[in-house]
Amino acid sequence: MKRTRFTLVRRPQGRPVEADFALVEEELPALAEGEFLVANRYASLDPAIRGWLDDAPSYMPPVPLGEAVRATTVGEVVESRNPAFPVGQWVVGLHGIETHSIGRSDGFASPVDPALVPSPTHFLSALGAVGMTAWFGLERVLMPAPGQTLLVSAAAGAVGSLVGQLGRLKGCRTIGIAGGEAKCRRLVERYGYDAAIDHRGRDAEAIAEAIRAAAPEGVDRVFENVGGACLDGALLALRDGARVALCGLIAEYNAPAPVGARNLWQLIVRKATIRGFLVSEWLPEWPEGIAAMAALLREGKLVVDEHVDRGLDQAYAAFMRLFDGTNEGKMILEIA
Amino acid sequence: MKRTRFTLVRRPQGRPVEADFALVEEELPALAEGEFLVANRYASLDPAIRGWLDDAPSYMPPVPLGEAVRATTVGEVVESRNPAFPVGQWVVGLHGIETHSIGRSDGFASPVDPALVPSPTHFLSALGAVGMTAWFGLERVLMPAPGQTLLVSAAAGAVGSLVGQLGRLKGCRTIGIAGGEAKCRRLVERYGYDAAIDHRGRDAEAIAEAIRAAAPEGVDRVFENVGGACLDGALLALRDGARVALCGLIAEYNAPAPVGARNLWQLIVRKATIRGFLVSEWLPEWPEGIAAMAALLREGKLVVDEHVDRGLDQAYAAFMRLFDGTNEGKMILEIA
Repeated sequence: MKRTRFTLVRRPQGRPVEADFALVEEELPALAEGEFLVANRYASLDPAIRGWLDDAPSYMPPVPLGEAVRATTVGEVVESRNPAFPVGQWVVGLHGIETHSIGRSDGFASPVDPALVPSPTHFLSALGAVGMTAWFGLERVLMPAPGQTLLVSAAAGAVGSLVGQLGRLKGCRTIGIAGGEAKCRRLVERYGYDAAIDHRGRDAEAIAEAIRAAAPEGVDRVFENVGGACLDGALLALRDGARVALCGLIAEYNAPAPVGARNLWQLIVRKATIRGFLVSEWLPEWPEGIAAMAALLREGKLVVDEHVDRGLDQAYAAFMRLFDGTNEGKMILEIA
Repeated sequence: MKRTRFTLVRRPQGRPVEADFALVEEELPALAEGEFLVANRYASLDPAIRGWLDDAPSYMPPVPLGEAVRATTVGEVVESRNPAFPVGQWVVGLHGIETHSIGRSDGFASPVDPALVPSPTHFLSALGAVGMTAWFGLERVLMPAPGQTLLVSAAAGAVGSLVGQLGRLKGCRTIGIAGGEAKCRRLVERYGYDAAIDHRGRDAEAIAEAIRAAAPEGVDRVFENVGGACLDGALLALRDGARVALCGLIAEYNAPAPVGARNLWQLIVRKATIRGFLVSEWLPEWPEGIAAMAALLREGKLVVDEHVDRGLDQAYAAFMRLFDGTNEGKMILEIA
């Protein structure tokens, strides 16, 4: 039996190019005791994947050259030597962008029930790492109070669009930063943001000015996905005692040299905090977050946008949408 | 009656030059009801003063052109129209680098008892903003546990030397960063640091390497006074869940362009926090901090180094020592 894999053949320098990857067909190895074979239906494409392609110390080992690019997938067990993952079981796991993944109990894999959600893609969006990032970032890091002003960068993105909606449900005033007029319209019309700021053509000072126009007293909470001018602008518009949840720095990931943050002195002036976080910190509590997000979904209180591209041959192009900003919603690759 | 003032005549561009200031003699105005006249004995020279010279939004209004440079002073009341500050009373206040300051009840001024300390200069060092910065930064922001590793930058400085000693008294392993061999020797021999790192000639990566050599598992707590390569190096050597207290960014203050922090992504990887603070946050609790520091002084548990230059005509040169690093201990100007 064969599988096709989207493999890493060369470590990207800055922005990944197509030749850094190759589609490879190979014979599937036989399963060892405890292993199970997952036929992947969908793969989650996330900015974090970019970090895993570098050979740099991080919270996870780099993707080895010649191996499938690591991604969370959802699929069905089609062969098993593990009683906890029988044939027919649906599984979400940190596997690879490939038609078939070999799962292990000691890996990151969980059985899931597709009857719980309208589409199995939801396990990769609202109930997946993206949804949990929004939920725990807000509930455990930012802990905003009703009436506070919440600023979100990459606010139309997969995480940001959920953060804005969850913040609004908690009674916050929400301001979103996104790139381009169309996205800014989506922020207000689709995700219920109170104000939208287009970062295109604006430097940190201009972004700060736009934030202050929308929130003259400054912002209490910032959910930061971008870094660069977005973060530097936010730092210039903090209220005393503000908290910044540092979730991602997508402005840095493909930059040839670090962009950095130039306004950290505002943390002193504003007695403010930046807290970096990884959603894996609350892994034992995910069931609680998943239940909460599933309930909001069922009650129709959340708009969950997914951008699904089809076919392993589209993996590179689909991944790059994350950095070009041409996706509208959580980026997902349909594998089969 | 006349007074002499060290006034700001031009806003510095980057590094202050002597012509940005002028010594001015002027007739003292008559006291209004509620005012009192302080004959200043000593002025505290602090890096924060540099920020007050810029016309930029901050936690305090900029020093007006033509006015005395703002500084904390200690002195004696020599004339009074305020019963709470009678003639003969010693006062610590946020006044100016000048022979005489006019105090007001609604300003930052407190009566002090010089009998409590070996020297009135101690009100500007261990019992002043410097001592309170070390105390509250450690007690309220970093809250290190015994056995944790505490990294301090500008570790031989007025704040840093106290932080290292207080951290050690709390049972921490302490690592200090300073500029030059002589200062590094002081760190270990005089302030009891377990390890010293010379930042001269080292970039962020080399500083990180030196930190990891002294603390192979990384550092739990960072008391950051410098920014630039010191902060970037510290960020590369954090332990999971680390906390950074951002007290100052002296590397930025005179830089022509912002230096910035390039390794904020480490906050995500390490699930770490940076908290900026101003010692004024705990102003109501200062008596508690002052009592604690006074007790440590009396018990001989603290080495408090002061670098006293004499005369208002030395104000500029003395102030610049802070940025050249030629002071050995808390920088104080003796006025009279």
